[in-house]
Amino acid sequence: MEYSVGIIGSGNVAWHFGHAIKKAGHKIKYVSGRNKNTVPTLAAQLNADAMPIKANLKPVDIVVVALSDSIIYDVINIVKPASGIYVHTSGSLPLNIFGRFVDDYGVIYPFQSLTKEIKTDVKETPLCIEASNDKTMSVIQDLSSSISNRVHELGSDKRKYLHLAGVLANNFTNYVYSLSYKMLKDRGLNPHLMEPLIVETANKVLNKNPDEMQTGPARRNNQNIIKLHLELLNEYPEIHQLYSLISEQIVEKYNE
Amino acid sequence: MEYSVGIIGSGNVAWHFGHAIKKAGHKIKYVSGRNKNTVPTLAAQLNADAMPIKANLKPVDIVVVALSDSIIYDVINIVKPASGIYVHTSGSLPLNIFGRFVDDYGVIYPFQSLTKEIKTDVKETPLCIEASNDKTMSVIQDLSSSISNRVHELGSDKRKYLHLAGVLANNFTNYVYSLSYKMLKDRGLNPHLMEPLIVETANKVLNKNPDEMQTGPARRNNQNIIKLHLELLNEYPEIHQLYSLISEQIVEKYNE
Repeated sequence: MEYSVGIIGSGNVAWHFGHAIKKAGHKIKYVSGRNKNTVPTLAAQLNADAMPIKANLKPVDIVVVALSDSIIYDVINIVKPASGIYVHTSGSLPLNIFGRFVDDYGVIYPFQSLTKEIKTDVKETPLCIEASNDKTMSVIQDLSSSISNRVHELGSDKRKYLHLAGVLANNFTNYVYSLSYKMLKDRGLNPHLMEPLIVETANKVLNKNPDEMQTGPARRNNQNIIKLHLELLNEYPEIHQLYSLISEQIVEKYNE
Repeated sequence: MEYSVGIIGSGNVAWHFGHAIKKAGHKIKYVSGRNKNTVPTLAAQLNADAMPIKANLKPVDIVVVALSDSIIYDVINIVKPASGIYVHTSGSLPLNIFGRFVDDYGVIYPFQSLTKEIKTDVKETPLCIEASNDKTMSVIQDLSSSISNRVHELGSDKRKYLHLAGVLANNFTNYVYSLSYKMLKDRGLNPHLMEPLIVETANKVLNKNPDEMQTGPARRNNQNIIKLHLELLNEYPEIHQLYSLISEQIVEKYNE
């Protein structure tokens, strides 16, 4: 079915959801938010109206509130809700944040790292959905399935753990990449040498268990190499700490 | 040019190098090593002779010694070297481990995670090469370029740091994946939900600086989410420790 949609927010998730929803044939009526640059830009791209956050918003079938966790409560308190299903897109917030002012609400949490400038196939992005009642669920399910092939019903408690797992696999992994890049640059090495290894490491766990893909000095409990590496890391205290901790954990997991 | 090659070892690197060298049109004369199963298997695949490690090895242009760091010295002491250039494939060992018994030696270090069962394009694998003299370098360069498009000359000191960076970006990243998978399984979630995020995280750093790709609660210094996550992790002491340490480092890096 085709829905009329309003979008509150103009960040990375609003951007990717807005484009995916429009592409799926739904009508985006407005983009609302506080940012005076990105709200009108996104609205123009989606052939939608740009609306200030305090305006009387038009009634739509679904309002997608794609805001960061730290500001979402402030904004909810300002918005004057019109009719429609309210959904948020957060991994950590509970289902019921809209419960005070509407009956029909839910969650569409995209389990992917979305950045405006970077193309991501929303069709292949897992969307974890939840709703306040069955009627609302069927609408959220219908909208979600029109933009992604990977829709999963997931309660708030499980969603919290999934979000946490995402912080590990995305944010922490990226941080480890950045440490490696910095060290290579310092040593006059081109950090892009890392790229084939980084991509292969990720691809290796497709349909595999990472427990079986584990390699390296700690996996083999090769204390000579671990010691050598810790010496090389004396001038990088952050990496030294991290190397010690993770190596200890890997040694303990595989060699006890 | 076509070379005659001998391979000592029958593990992951020997397997991938052997197949790539054969495919490039060189003649592999023998595979030598201690393992009574994998040595004859690899030798048969490469149309080469399987030789015990103490045998008198045939003279070849290049002997590729693809053994793990922890056993390579033991094996070197047993081998009776015939003529030919000796190369090892280790990220951590110095250039000169063959210096006691031959003049022409070097290193071909593949900067990639190689596993027998998993196809990897050696053509796209960075090979870091080093040699004891110019004449030897030109042979090693020639052989390496015939199996990979990414050949880099690199001294032992830089190679050590590159190997260390690889431990971070491959071994530690994989370990973080395994922690996430375990937690999801415990919570009744399908760990393969992680796959699109893992692959996207890796692809995002292609031609980019991971410093600019950093996202997440610690990047935004969102202490509420960090606190929530640490509470969820009370029953996972290893992940709790790692989460604390990395979050602190990210907060400090981006929010000071």
